[in-house]
Amino acid sequence: MTDPKRRGRRPAGEDTKAALLAAAREVFTEQGFDGATVRAIAARAEVDPAMVNHWFGGKQGLFAAAVELPITPAFIKQAVFDAGPPEELAVRVVRTFVTTWDNTGGGGFAALVRSAATQESAAQMLRQFIGIVFGTMLHELGVDQPELRLGLFGSQLAGLGLARYVMRLEPIASADVDTLIATIAPTLQHYLTGKLPI
Amino acid sequence: MTDPKRRGRRPAGEDTKAALLAAAREVFTEQGFDGATVRAIAARAEVDPAMVNHWFGGKQGLFAAAVELPITPAFIKQAVFDAGPPEELAVRVVRTFVTTWDNTGGGGFAALVRSAATQESAAQMLRQFIGIVFGTMLHELGVDQPELRLGLFGSQLAGLGLARYVMRLEPIASADVDTLIATIAPTLQHYLTGKLPI
Repeated sequence: MTDPKRRGRRPAGEDTKAALLAAAREVFTEQGFDGATVRAIAARAEVDPAMVNHWFGGKQGLFAAAVELPITPAFIKQAVFDAGPPEELAVRVVRTFVTTWDNTGGGGFAALVRSAATQESAAQMLRQFIGIVFGTMLHELGVDQPELRLGLFGSQLAGLGLARYVMRLEPIASADVDTLIATIAPTLQHYLTGKLPI
Repeated sequence: MTDPKRRGRRPAGEDTKAALLAAAREVFTEQGFDGATVRAIAARAEVDPAMVNHWFGGKQGLFAAAVELPITPAFIKQAVFDAGPPEELAVRVVRTFVTTWDNTGGGGFAALVRSAATQESAAQMLRQFIGIVFGTMLHELGVDQPELRLGLFGSQLAGLGLARYVMRLEPIASADVDTLIATIAPTLQHYLTGKLPI
C-alpha cells in the first residue's frame, strides 16, 4: 500500500474496470453479496463509486461480471421466474441457460468452470450467485427441502454446461435448444417441484 | 529431438512414469484408444514397453492415468455393469462414482475438470473414456438412441461431480452416498433405460 505507483487517482477506462473487478472479487468473497457495498468495493479499488454504475450498471452487474457470468440475477428473475407459470419454470431455465452461454461461444462457461476448479473464492462466489438467484425462487415456490432441491437442480444444470461446453459430448454439444428442453427440463422440473424420493 | 540430454535410455522411476504419461496423452489424442499401441507410446517416451505394465498394469491403466481417472474401464465394467441387474445399474454407478472420487478427497475430480476446461486434448480423452466405458454398456443394453442417452447420463453424472467436488454446493457436497443414490440414481436410470421424451 506504500507503493507510490498505487496512490492517487487511477486512469479512467479499462484499468478502472479491471481494478473494480479485482476489488469486487475480494470484497464479495470476504463479505458476501449482501454485506459488500459499492462504496467499499470502490474504495478498495481506489476509484469513484460512480464508476460502478458507469461500467457495470450497479452492484448486481458488477457481481455477475466478477463471477464471470454474462447475465445478472435481476435479468434471470425477469426472464425465468416472472415470465410464465411455475410448472414450466425448467423450460425457461434451459432456454435461458443455453441461449446465454451459446452466445459466448461456450468459452464463457469453460472459463467459469476453470475459475471455480482453480480458486476456492471463485467457487464460493458461484455458490453465492446460485443461492441468490435460485434460493429465492425456491423459497417463493414454497416447496419442501429447498436446499436439497437447489443442489440437485444445480448439479443437472451445471452438468448440462459441462457436457455441452467443456467436454463437448455429442449429441449434447450440438443439440438444438428444443431437444435439450425436451430431455433435460423434465429432470430439472422434477428437482424443483416434484416429489423427492427422500 | 537433437538435444543430447533427451537421447538414450531414460533413468528408471518417476521420470519413466512421467515420460510415459506425457507420451500416452499425445498418442491417445492423435490415434484414439483403439489405435494407440503400448509399443508406440513406449517408443514416443523412449522407454522399454515393459515399463507400461510395470507402472500402469497395461494399456487400460495407462489410459486411465493419462485421463487423470483413478479407475480403469475394466474395473468399472466389473464393479458396475457385471455386478447386478440392469435396472439397478444407476445405483451402482452413483455408488462407484462417489466412493471413488471421495477417496481422492475430491481434488482428483477438480483436477480432471480443470484439465478438460483448459486443454482440448484432455477433453477429447475424457470423451473417449466415457465412450469406451458407457458406450459399450449402452450397446449391450440394446436401448434406442444410445448416443443421446449417453450424453444425458454424462451430463447428470458430471454435474454431480461438479456440484460435490468443484462448486461444493450444499447439501450435495456433504451428502452421504445413500442420499445421492436415492435422489440422483433415478434420473440416471431414466436416462439409461427409461422412455425418452423425444
